[in-house]
Amino acid sequence: MTTPDASLSASILAIMYFGDIVFSISGALTAARYRMDVFGFLLIGTTTGIGGGTLRDLLLGRTVWWTQDPTELLLCVAAALLTFFFLPSDIARRRGLIWADALGLAAFCVVGCSIALEFGSPPIIAVFMGLVTATGGGVIRDVLANTQPMITSGQPYAAAALLGSLSYAVLRYLAIPEIAAEVIAFAAAFGLRGSALLFDIRMGPPGEF
Amino acid sequence: MTTPDASLSASILAIMYFGDIVFSISGALTAARYRMDVFGFLLIGTTTGIGGGTLRDLLLGRTVWWTQDPTELLLCVAAALLTFFFLPSDIARRRGLIWADALGLAAFCVVGCSIALEFGSPPIIAVFMGLVTATGGGVIRDVLANTQPMITSGQPYAAAALLGSLSYAVLRYLAIPEIAAEVIAFAAAFGLRGSALLFDIRMGPPGEF
Amino acid sequence: MTTPDASLSASILAIMYFGDIVFSISGALTAARYRMDVFGFLLIGTTTGIGGGTLRDLLLGRTVWWTQDPTELLLCVAAALLTFFFLPSDIARRRGLIWADALGLAAFCVVGCSIALEFGSPPIIAVFMGLVTATGGGVIRDVLANTQPMITSGQPYAAAALLGSLSYAVLRYLAIPEIAAEVIAFAAAFGLRGSALLFDIRMGPPGEF
Repeated sequence: MTTPDASLSASILAIMYFGDIVFSISGALTAARYRMDVFGFLLIGTTTGIGGGTLRDLLLGRTVWWTQDPTELLLCVAAALLTFFFLPSDIARRRGLIWADALGLAAFCVVGCSIALEFGSPPIIAVFMGLVTATGGGVIRDVLANTQPMITSGQPYAAAALLGSLSYAVLRYLAIPEIAAEVIAFAAAFGLRGSALLFDIRMGPPGEF
Repeated sequence: MTTPDASLSASILAIMYFGDIVFSISGALTAARYRMDVFGFLLIGTTTGIGGGTLRDLLLGRTVWWTQDPTELLLCVAAALLTFFFLPSDIARRRGLIWADALGLAAFCVVGCSIALEFGSPPIIAVFMGLVTATGGGVIRDVLANTQPMITSGQPYAAAALLGSLSYAVLRYLAIPEIAAEVIAFAAAFGLRGSALLFDIRMGPPGEF
Repeated sequence: MTTPDASLSASILAIMYFGDIVFSISGALTAARYRMDVFGFLLIGTTTGIGGGTLRDLLLGRTVWWTQDPTELLLCVAAALLTFFFLPSDIARRRGLIWADALGLAAFCVVGCSIALEFGSPPIIAVFMGLVTATGGGVIRDVLANTQPMITSGQPYAAAALLGSLSYAVLRYLAIPEIAAEVIAFAAAFGLRGSALLFDIRMGPPGEF
């Protein structure tokens, strides 16, 4: 078996695995809100964890690597199972869901932009792919649970992913060292999304939902 | 025109066509519940019938064969049309929907796992692809109708697909003859899903929906 | 950078860009109905504009061209932004949404069928791809907004896309000049969909939604 994703740097792989895990937790906590059984946890956890990257790879015509090397899939399964067995109380559950989602959003906008640049996409497409990777899994999670996608909640969400993705592309263009670019872009995205959650920042008029 | 799916055995092809038909019927009966017109029947019937296999092929990077050879598409169209013209009463409709779905689930977990193994996927991925093939069409059907996906209903559903897919992979690994593996795995999946429907087995706490 | 879609005629490219723009407007007006912020407009606008063609290309195994050449993406972004800044009143908004959708439907059934024929698909698949291209973006839009997909509303919708797609394929088969085929097929689809909107034509029994 060839090593997939061999072209990816160790730091991007680490951020990707981190994103897989936290998004899988957010999916599992969504399953918990709807009182699903363990298979519901596994299903929504894994599809949330790998959904954004899968969508990016399908669009780019890149191999969907988890169909060759199950590492990402197994990480998502493990995270969803652990969430099932060590389930927090109802209140912590909701809070865990939105913060796990925020961490995954910040991780995946960096990963998605980086992978698309590596794949040879034009910068504007790479920035868009960061957005797709960061938001795709959460949209699939919310559609499966038949709730309003979090991306349409009125708070900065896509905006945070776009900020992270754009920061990463600009910093790489300026030839900033890769790890610095990753940390700064992650911090920018998580900072904006986290502030929005803490202070209930809204960008539009009060929404209907 | 080359014969697509030439690598598939006659028995897998037969189970695949059977799954296409029963899933298309389940989609058409969903259209009936929402009182759609004949095109709604066709749309939801065909996307339910071919949705799971399409998702599997996109993920694997395999050719989506119905875009080359319309056999599967035409079977789904015929099944949806027949459902439209010979529509049962309201009560039989609901019952027909869940049982057609159960038959399709059992058929497609075997087909999906078999095709992925044939395609060269590692066993763990092949089992997962059985799950994706079996549940994908039903999820698309329920999302199109804007109802809660049946997979999140609290009854064994993904569990039944996983049982069938896993049984098939294990039996093939044990070098059991192919047809025996298919029959046993189908029976395992349908047995679990059918029991859940007959006795209203639930795996988790009472759900919110 | 090679010119993507170089195989497409100027008239099909023009209809495609027109469809991108009007579908993006319909997506942006959906975002407006749910009082989203500017990023919600951009997200739903662009995914509606490029969604149908993306789905077609993934199914056919064709390159998703907007990941190579951002022209379509930028058109969608511009249309969504203009809609945000020059937003009509509430009543005109609903009307704008359904008529922009109808124009996009008529444009994309022609484009989808033409591209699939060009790609070498059998005629029956090409007609189906016209249907997929015309309806895919709108379904994604309505799923993202968690509303009932317009395609299941009980009015002729898929029927109009099918009429346009089928007309185009038949006219091309009859060796009618390409531009004439495009105009006639567009007019047939838009005529049926527009009449349905003007006179509230329904094809089935009164629906539940």
